[in-house]
Amino acid sequence: MHRIAIIGLGQIGASIGMDLRAKLPDIEIIGHDIEPSTAGIARKRGAVDKISYSLPGTVEDASIVFLSVPVTAVKDVMGAIGPSLSPGAIVTDTASTKVDVLAWAGELLPDSVEFVGGHPMAGVETPGVNGAQSGMFEGATYAVIPLARSSEAAVKTVVDLVELLGAKHYFMDPNEHDGLVAAVSHLPIAVSIALMRSASSSPSWREMAGLAAGSFRDVSRLASGSPAMHHGIFTTNRESVLRWIDQYQNDLTAFRRLIEVGGEPLMDGLKEAFDARDGWLRGKVVETEAAKAFDEIPTAAENIMGTFGGDRLAQLGRRISKQEKEIESRRERGS
Amino acid sequence: MHRIAIIGLGQIGASIGMDLRAKLPDIEIIGHDIEPSTAGIARKRGAVDKISYSLPGTVEDASIVFLSVPVTAVKDVMGAIGPSLSPGAIVTDTASTKVDVLAWAGELLPDSVEFVGGHPMAGVETPGVNGAQSGMFEGATYAVIPLARSSEAAVKTVVDLVELLGAKHYFMDPNEHDGLVAAVSHLPIAVSIALMRSASSSPSWREMAGLAAGSFRDVSRLASGSPAMHHGIFTTNRESVLRWIDQYQNDLTAFRRLIEVGGEPLMDGLKEAFDARDGWLRGKVVETEAAKAFDEIPTAAENIMGTFGGDRLAQLGRRISKQEKEIESRRERGS
Repeated sequence: MHRIAIIGLGQIGASIGMDLRAKLPDIEIIGHDIEPSTAGIARKRGAVDKISYSLPGTVEDASIVFLSVPVTAVKDVMGAIGPSLSPGAIVTDTASTKVDVLAWAGELLPDSVEFVGGHPMAGVETPGVNGAQSGMFEGATYAVIPLARSSEAAVKTVVDLVELLGAKHYFMDPNEHDGLVAAVSHLPIAVSIALMRSASSSPSWREMAGLAAGSFRDVSRLASGSPAMHHGIFTTNRESVLRWIDQYQNDLTAFRRLIEVGGEPLMDGLKEAFDARDGWLRGKVVETEAAKAFDEIPTAAENIMGTFGGDRLAQLGRRISKQEKEIESRRERGS
Repeated sequence: MHRIAIIGLGQIGASIGMDLRAKLPDIEIIGHDIEPSTAGIARKRGAVDKISYSLPGTVEDASIVFLSVPVTAVKDVMGAIGPSLSPGAIVTDTASTKVDVLAWAGELLPDSVEFVGGHPMAGVETPGVNGAQSGMFEGATYAVIPLARSSEAAVKTVVDLVELLGAKHYFMDPNEHDGLVAAVSHLPIAVSIALMRSASSSPSWREMAGLAAGSFRDVSRLASGSPAMHHGIFTTNRESVLRWIDQYQNDLTAFRRLIEVGGEPLMDGLKEAFDARDGWLRGKVVETEAAKAFDEIPTAAENIMGTFGGDRLAQLGRRISKQEKEIESRRERGS
């Protein structure tokens, strides 16, 4: 039986497992987590068929391996699984930064396996395996960051997996990736945590807490993200994040000046921000050339099957198509 | 027929109308908005029984008047309705700041009417009347800020209205109110708008926009709030907001230093913020003495009826109780 391995069964890893199990019913999903209780919950929630308690045992017979651990754990995991990976296996990850991850992959994974980095731009507030859900990646952007030595076939397989998860692939270079997510993903984390720290360190926090409502809840939300994940992000993308915090401090100072001045200049500044976000929400600016590439690729499910050899393709293809129809009709019934 | 007037039929005013119409079926809700099209939508959505196109006409026969306009419009509206208010009428508002509002009320409303300030700590992303919804205030904190001259009866009526809306009243002094909401409501607006401005003014915004996901969406959400409302907030609560932005800049600089240092100190800082928010979400710190006051008050619906005279009380009370049961059972059916 063909096998996909998922190492790290937190919110992202377990969500990937749920979708792949539903979409690829004839492939075995084997999972591992450093916390056996997390792995147990993931299996109960339908994210994996089987749990393995050793890292080498998890990857031994896997054709595809997902690394869904905090970025600071990626290096150790790569070192631990390297010798046990099957020749030709495709390894991908879901970590939040990519420069370090790709360097580790080049250094620690054997030449006989492929590595293609990945970063799904999705997530919910509830941390860990309890926040996992099927359909997590539906419509999300999924950054795909190949190594210079990645084969076209390996890249295509990862793109197919991305599409199978319902996400849109977006090819990037690791430096470009880390620079851009520093602004739209890592800066918001710092901004949100600083707000939580500001309010909760006030002598009046007890009274404030009773008044804090939806606006405070949303802007402070990222303070509830996993400290281990955030630590990894700030450690592996430190320079870009520091640069963006400096930029942000300047922009906040400029906005503070508008509040001081008031009147028309303040109103103009408020309208600019309103319009910028409105434009973003309407998706006026989200289509890029990179995101439109690889249009020639056949449907995702067929292609993934190709990775496991052509013999069972027709049979599996039929099953997947049946499965997709069932999911569709369940959705229509609203269940 | 007894009458409640609502001036300003945006998100908050129209939501109040929807709930009061459902809970007080024998009282007429008359509404006014500076935009006739907004008033029309509010009527279609069931927020008011009747529209009035003149400010004096809206309040002439009303026993209770809600002012739900941006705070910068409150002064003009008070000036316009003052001479037409019925003696004994109770005026309340829902504006985001209170020091200026209470000063204007003292100055512009006749001594023959009562004023009790209010501020529901609730709201959703969709601005204006389209964002209005019944049950908007269910479980929310609702600050109640009386004038020094407010009668106990008037304060009780406003508290009853708050309870009828499903919210929890919280007595405050206007300076205390403006200082506390500067931190948990107005600072988040500035923080959120500055993030939107930072990202969208980058030369790489086009690429960033494609990657921006849930974390950016949540932390930048308040940039989509009404510019007129935000302008009023920053204008009438300028000093407190500027002071909190300064405090926030210091806290962000301190957190930036933790990112530079990394290691254990960064991990400790991340855990502190995580725990602070966790404590807030669990409500460990939200119960205050002020919020527990006025426990002796009878049920809200009965009391509101008292405001309109005792003769129809029994009859209306029965109807309301029937209405509440219907709402409850509709909720249980999930419709």
